[in-house]
Amino acid sequence: MRFSYVSHLYCPKCSLTYDLNQVQHLCECGAPLLVEYDLTSMKENWKPSDLVGRRNDLWRYHELLPLQREENIVSMGEGMTPLVLMEKLGEDMEIPLLYMKDEGVIPTGTFKARGAAVGVSKAKELGVKELAMPTNGNAGAAWSLYAAKSGIASTIVMPVDAPMITRNECAVAGANLYLVNGLISDAGKIVAQAVKEHDLYDVSTLKEPYRIEGKKTMGLEIAEQLGWEVPDVILYPTGGGVGLIGIYKALKELQQLGWIGEKMPRLVAVQSDGCAPIVKAWQEGKTESEFWHDSETIAFGINVPKALGDFLVLQAVYETEGCAVSVNDRDVIEELKLISQKEGAFVCPEGAAAFLAARQLRKEGWIQATDQVVVLNTGAGIKYPNTVEVEIPRLNKEEKIGPKNVTLQ
Amino acid sequence: MRFSYVSHLYCPKCSLTYDLNQVQHLCECGAPLLVEYDLTSMKENWKPSDLVGRRNDLWRYHELLPLQREENIVSMGEGMTPLVLMEKLGEDMEIPLLYMKDEGVIPTGTFKARGAAVGVSKAKELGVKELAMPTNGNAGAAWSLYAAKSGIASTIVMPVDAPMITRNECAVAGANLYLVNGLISDAGKIVAQAVKEHDLYDVSTLKEPYRIEGKKTMGLEIAEQLGWEVPDVILYPTGGGVGLIGIYKALKELQQLGWIGEKMPRLVAVQSDGCAPIVKAWQEGKTESEFWHDSETIAFGINVPKALGDFLVLQAVYETEGCAVSVNDRDVIEELKLISQKEGAFVCPEGAAAFLAARQLRKEGWIQATDQVVVLNTGAGIKYPNTVEVEIPRLNKEEKIGPKNVTLQ
Repeated sequence: MRFSYVSHLYCPKCSLTYDLNQVQHLCECGAPLLVEYDLTSMKENWKPSDLVGRRNDLWRYHELLPLQREENIVSMGEGMTPLVLMEKLGEDMEIPLLYMKDEGVIPTGTFKARGAAVGVSKAKELGVKELAMPTNGNAGAAWSLYAAKSGIASTIVMPVDAPMITRNECAVAGANLYLVNGLISDAGKIVAQAVKEHDLYDVSTLKEPYRIEGKKTMGLEIAEQLGWEVPDVILYPTGGGVGLIGIYKALKELQQLGWIGEKMPRLVAVQSDGCAPIVKAWQEGKTESEFWHDSETIAFGINVPKALGDFLVLQAVYETEGCAVSVNDRDVIEELKLISQKEGAFVCPEGAAAFLAARQLRKEGWIQATDQVVVLNTGAGIKYPNTVEVEIPRLNKEEKIGPKNVTLQ
Repeated sequence: MRFSYVSHLYCPKCSLTYDLNQVQHLCECGAPLLVEYDLTSMKENWKPSDLVGRRNDLWRYHELLPLQREENIVSMGEGMTPLVLMEKLGEDMEIPLLYMKDEGVIPTGTFKARGAAVGVSKAKELGVKELAMPTNGNAGAAWSLYAAKSGIASTIVMPVDAPMITRNECAVAGANLYLVNGLISDAGKIVAQAVKEHDLYDVSTLKEPYRIEGKKTMGLEIAEQLGWEVPDVILYPTGGGVGLIGIYKALKELQQLGWIGEKMPRLVAVQSDGCAPIVKAWQEGKTESEFWHDSETIAFGINVPKALGDFLVLQAVYETEGCAVSVNDRDVIEELKLISQKEGAFVCPEGAAAFLAARQLRKEGWIQATDQVVVLNTGAGIKYPNTVEVEIPRLNKEEKIGPKNVTLQ
């Protein structure tokens, strides 16, 4: 039995192929590279029952991951996050089969851990000594922590406005961390320069091919957790869109392996009204997006004006008969509160945006009452303490209070 | 097959028994009540292989939990947290078999979710409409979120100094939240008064019997994750001590079921030098602790000057030939940084304290190099953003940087 059926790298744009035993970044045509597996041989040797009793994290799918030797795994137990039926919220939205895939319940508190675990493990296998990346916060936190565990040094540059807590995570991991008075695009330029001058391993979104492989495990897990069936709709808050690309890739691979049938979920890319390049492109029937100027949203993770993988996101949406939809920030906050109060789940604003999109699509009839719907909550609300403003009464010792509906201060 | 083999409640101090179909709090003698199961009948009908393929959270152990009807489960997928080998840290401490049970990877980000999930589910089964509790923060957050999901109202009182983020969690859950200018003991008095006047369900630590049952699942999981073996040593940061009591209870139950052998791990209660009542009692060979005046520690969760269940904690320590040990705050911060840098795990200060205790006990020879050691990290470091102070260089656009060891600003 092979540990991995990984075969080679290829360019989804121009079809050039690359050797995966060497460090590779973008294709010479400028597009991101994808990982190909020997699915024919896998199909003969791998079946769902092989997963029974395996480790309870994303490495249970090691045959379909790019790592070639088990000893290179860098893991903190990431993956197999809960898939929770949202009964009361679903009732409120008139979507009885509404599920949350909760990516807050993972090391570092966001889905970025998946890309980092697989990406850093592969970097270790390739002999990388130092990696570098620009980040809006959470990816930098995840990559610098996994890099620390693997013994790889990391250089991280983030905007001064990135969530405060992610600074501490990078710093405590011992990363070479910088803040930039600017946006992630400015951080990107600084990193690109350093990569060139100092021969660092560039792990910017989609500039190495393995992050997608980590993210795709969300798709594998959803299928496994639903008994190797797929839902009718999956909604995903879309910035760089790596997760959506990954989920689509995972499901196509599972189809080729014969583990799931012909049916594909309709994939929905959710953005904010303040930064909706993918939505605009989809509305106009285009295959690539245009740079979104003066972007702004409280959902910091999806503030990405132009994604390198936009054409792959749009392809996944078109080919699954999905859609792209945007929501407004004010309503996102209201949805976030409602989710907490009905379901006890303190989700991140990006997750709340995706739930709100489900609500909108149900109202419009695009989602039907009989549809099974999975919403990705990409991180824990506790990483964004200032999303919700609260005013709380203060008591002196021995003051009296009443129950919920009888406040006696 | 029975869903649960729960039998009745009993007092570990005076042996009185109570009916579990009614709301119960403390025994009339003032001691906390514990849950008893019909282990004889269970032993005949339940075996480890029954767990294969079950849901991947603490409810997989429903036969050994107090809920009588499955439909009362209030769950967000809590439990089956990672048990991670800490290879580099273990090498540094000369404990090659050093493991972290990572309770940061759970809804709400701390182990408090376990007690809340089981406690709230049972409250729902008992028909409770409103619960109340004093809290140092994390328990209040977990209970108010699970209560929200179950439809039970909650009244929470916490010290103004409790971690900021936990306020937001309670508030977003829609709890009836108050801050008190004082300590948790002051919050406790206010809650006690409200409970009495308004007939609320009191879920203060150990004042209802079901929180322990949630916490004990940490013990069940450790045993299952190690293949129904127990480690040599388990270290647990001890405030109220419910987790330690629970782990001990779980392992005793597993022994009676014949799932594990005679061997018990030595249980270690870890406290801070600034609040070490259990350590003092253990050093003096006593069976109860005394109130610790002017307690202070950065590990807020273990700042408990006198625990209601102290006698149960001490019993667990004595009967397993464990020990109680305290550590100092300054060294805790250094350990926390080291854990992040070596293992990529941003743990909470309480967790770091327990790792530091392992280091101390290894130095003293109490832990041997061959011992298999499990340390409980009770929560995610991201819930304590201010534990580590960081100073990060700021760049202007287009400034240059170097790699890790060549800083060029």
